[in-house]
Amino acid sequence: MEFKVLLRDLVGGSPNYFIVHPDYLKTLDVEPGLLIKIIDRNQGFRLMSSSIVPPTFAAISPEIAKHLRLKEGDVVECEEIGLEKYTRVVRRKMARKALNKQEITDFLDAIEYGYVADSHIATFGTAIEINSMNLTEVTDVAAGILEHSKKLTHKRSPIVDKHSIGGIAGNRITPIMIPIIAAAGLTIPKVSTRAITSPAGTSDALEVVMGVEFTLEETAQIVEKTNGCMVDGLKIGLGAVADKFLRVVKQVKIDPKEMMLASILSKKKAAGSKYVLIDLPTGKGSKLPQREDARQLASQFAALGSNLGLQIESIVSPGDTPIGTMIGPALEIKEGIQILEGQTSSLSLEKKAVSLSGIIFEMVGKANPGEGYNLAREILTSGKALDKFKEICEAQGGDPKIKSEDVQEARYTHVIKATTEDTIYSLDSYNVGLIARAAGAPKDKYSGLIIHKQRGDIVHEGDALITIWANSEHKIDEAIQIMETAPPYTMERMILEHIKAPREFKVDI
Amino acid sequence: MEFKVLLRDLVGGSPNYFIVHPDYLKTLDVEPGLLIKIIDRNQGFRLMSSSIVPPTFAAISPEIAKHLRLKEGDVVECEEIGLEKYTRVVRRKMARKALNKQEITDFLDAIEYGYVADSHIATFGTAIEINSMNLTEVTDVAAGILEHSKKLTHKRSPIVDKHSIGGIAGNRITPIMIPIIAAAGLTIPKVSTRAITSPAGTSDALEVVMGVEFTLEETAQIVEKTNGCMVDGLKIGLGAVADKFLRVVKQVKIDPKEMMLASILSKKKAAGSKYVLIDLPTGKGSKLPQREDARQLASQFAALGSNLGLQIESIVSPGDTPIGTMIGPALEIKEGIQILEGQTSSLSLEKKAVSLSGIIFEMVGKANPGEGYNLAREILTSGKALDKFKEICEAQGGDPKIKSEDVQEARYTHVIKATTEDTIYSLDSYNVGLIARAAGAPKDKYSGLIIHKQRGDIVHEGDALITIWANSEHKIDEAIQIMETAPPYTMERMILEHIKAPREFKVDI
Repeated sequence: MEFKVLLRDLVGGSPNYFIVHPDYLKTLDVEPGLLIKIIDRNQGFRLMSSSIVPPTFAAISPEIAKHLRLKEGDVVECEEIGLEKYTRVVRRKMARKALNKQEITDFLDAIEYGYVADSHIATFGTAIEINSMNLTEVTDVAAGILEHSKKLTHKRSPIVDKHSIGGIAGNRITPIMIPIIAAAGLTIPKVSTRAITSPAGTSDALEVVMGVEFTLEETAQIVEKTNGCMVDGLKIGLGAVADKFLRVVKQVKIDPKEMMLASILSKKKAAGSKYVLIDLPTGKGSKLPQREDARQLASQFAALGSNLGLQIESIVSPGDTPIGTMIGPALEIKEGIQILEGQTSSLSLEKKAVSLSGIIFEMVGKANPGEGYNLAREILTSGKALDKFKEICEAQGGDPKIKSEDVQEARYTHVIKATTEDTIYSLDSYNVGLIARAAGAPKDKYSGLIIHKQRGDIVHEGDALITIWANSEHKIDEAIQIMETAPPYTMERMILEHIKAPREFKVDI
Repeated sequence: MEFKVLLRDLVGGSPNYFIVHPDYLKTLDVEPGLLIKIIDRNQGFRLMSSSIVPPTFAAISPEIAKHLRLKEGDVVECEEIGLEKYTRVVRRKMARKALNKQEITDFLDAIEYGYVADSHIATFGTAIEINSMNLTEVTDVAAGILEHSKKLTHKRSPIVDKHSIGGIAGNRITPIMIPIIAAAGLTIPKVSTRAITSPAGTSDALEVVMGVEFTLEETAQIVEKTNGCMVDGLKIGLGAVADKFLRVVKQVKIDPKEMMLASILSKKKAAGSKYVLIDLPTGKGSKLPQREDARQLASQFAALGSNLGLQIESIVSPGDTPIGTMIGPALEIKEGIQILEGQTSSLSLEKKAVSLSGIIFEMVGKANPGEGYNLAREILTSGKALDKFKEICEAQGGDPKIKSEDVQEARYTHVIKATTEDTIYSLDSYNVGLIARAAGAPKDKYSGLIIHKQRGDIVHEGDALITIWANSEHKIDEAIQIMETAPPYTMERMILEHIKAPREFKVDI
């Protein structure tokens, strides 16, 4: 089938539509919704119909046309995409079979080129989530992602990195760690993400004070200049095929662990890293509720890393309670800079960033065993880490004279106070995240909350527990309201359960 | 969020789009692709963007607007659909949990009203196919489908029906059975389907000589008048929510058995039937390769039927070899009418239709045990079944004087001949289907093939094996070509395997 190209952004948000007059579809004897490809180009399209497109034409998004070097009036010859190859792969995984390298390559190609619809990807993801993949399959997935990916190369070595399994509130160690590590002369090309379910992703927080969206070439220059970077993953596009897969499975709220593993490590490899420390927050409300889950994931990271030529170590960290005390994009970067400036804002956050930096120093032999922590602390307290942060900030288009006090704040605050004397039994990071989101984070970068009291603290009536920051009174109200179903604190109770005998309870005498 | 309705068929084939100017989406602070619903109406929409829609307007398909009684300029207030309820149901099935009635009802509602995207439905279907459903769940699904469905009611009783698990070539018993049964005074409101993977569905074949697309009211009148009908399922819309589900899972080539069971029996119940005979073709190339699969399915049909107040019996029939000798929509209806006319075209097809009719007579007490077959045969040979066929044909807009010889034929034929003397070991119904489809069936109703030789026949060089019918020489060539990879016949071989000792084989002496 042939079409004449019409550059027209008829429907945004789904750029791979080929929109054709319904009568012309009839002439071609095909149904709307058919997946087609341009012969000799690696790009799939979904054939849709609209009576406003003239016959024999196909309306294509100008953006995708540019990518394919097509101009208005070009004649493109298309063919139906044979889906059988891809549905067979899914059916084999549904039947608990291990997929071979060719099958995995085929399906990744199909995702990359848009040869399959979102529903095929959803089916593939569901089958993987239910029936799992073995190490060979995961290695093949990672290798396949890497094959499609652009790569960062560096003139120095060693190249190190860290990665936190995310989604929990107040675990913003990147803006502290990367400066410490880069200041020590190691190269750390850190690529972060934005929030999906949490009140702030690393990129959201960093963006308050510096640019985060850079191309591969720009990123390489930043790393070349400063030994490190703290950029967002989207524009740089490492492992883009993994992101296409994850976009779909996130919509249907599944998250196959094996694809997550392959995605993370193939991206680290594409970024040029050799040594990677994985942070696995565990506990209630985190992605890894049981400690054993975290241990198992750590060994899977190590095994996959070994297959990819990466040296991986993992730490299991507490994930049930927020690490930092300030939650929300601007508040989190403010707290990070405070720590770099030597103000002890959150001891836990500072300790975690220093500990992890120390482990990386020991991994690459920068410090002797047992001495990494002290080296990292020295770099932090000496102000070298702050200088490095400012250097990276400048390289990423931010103000090199940035101070924590310059970070802007939201217009409205509301303090939640203790109503009785009590001991705090627990502080729930998941609920804290919900409250910060209700206040407007991460979309409104300046909203969020500050935690004043920690687990184990004794509080008296009238003590400030939490301050909510928002840019409207309405958002303050929403945050207060959500606390009714998602309380941030649990107070200590002396009676946990009171078990009464049931009425029909009878004792044999 | 509020929109002004603009009646514009911007994108066909996906009618539930709400197309809005991208700037207006930004004002509303929502992303394209968001699923929304009009407050107080049960209809979900996917929010898309296009710069040709004026701000504050939303372009809606005129068809769906009519259904929702919306007119141009109406202001509709919309809200985001909370997907969590539905993704939770899928996650529970992924974790092998049994779904409760409320969860099943919620998800069926979401499918019916378009509250979920195809990828959610695909995920749900995949989870069911992998982790199955128990009888209570399947019963709840069937009850849910029924609750959403229109219903046929009848003034007579008993109401009977038959259903073949389809997808195999040449199993066209409906045009023979329904007239036999209706002529005996039983009521049989048969609702059929079109081909998906086979060279002809019952609806495709019937449509060559009569109308098959009728509304519920028209169908009721046909049954009232003639005691039977042979209509297509799409327009009548019984169990439409099942069809919406099946449309998506068929795209991704999965077919969860439990949903199929629930769909079939809820539709029979919606059609008013009380006694249903299920035909389960088994063997290589059929949906039930092993006899044991068919037996298991039969017991599941019986159990679900009992929960729905239906009396179900099943027969297991051969499905590896075509039953009729003529394959393709026109050829199949021609062969059916030949049998009604008393011409012995295919003894197997005639025998199957008569046997199944006899079982139904015995199920409802119309014949004593062991006497159903003879009653059915008597109705067929007496010409009463032919008269009834013509009566139904007329009621469905066809010619009441229809003769088998009047059924039109394709323009080109090609005879495949035996090249050596041989005995036919097997005739493969799956491959026969592929050849007929290559010739143009079911889209070209007059194409297909005729089988001249059956399993066990001795053939001599030059004997006609198969005649291909097509409407172009090109299509004849395509059908011939596909035989290379999908041969219809296997010839008898006296040596099945020749096992030689491997070279390195050594015998201890």
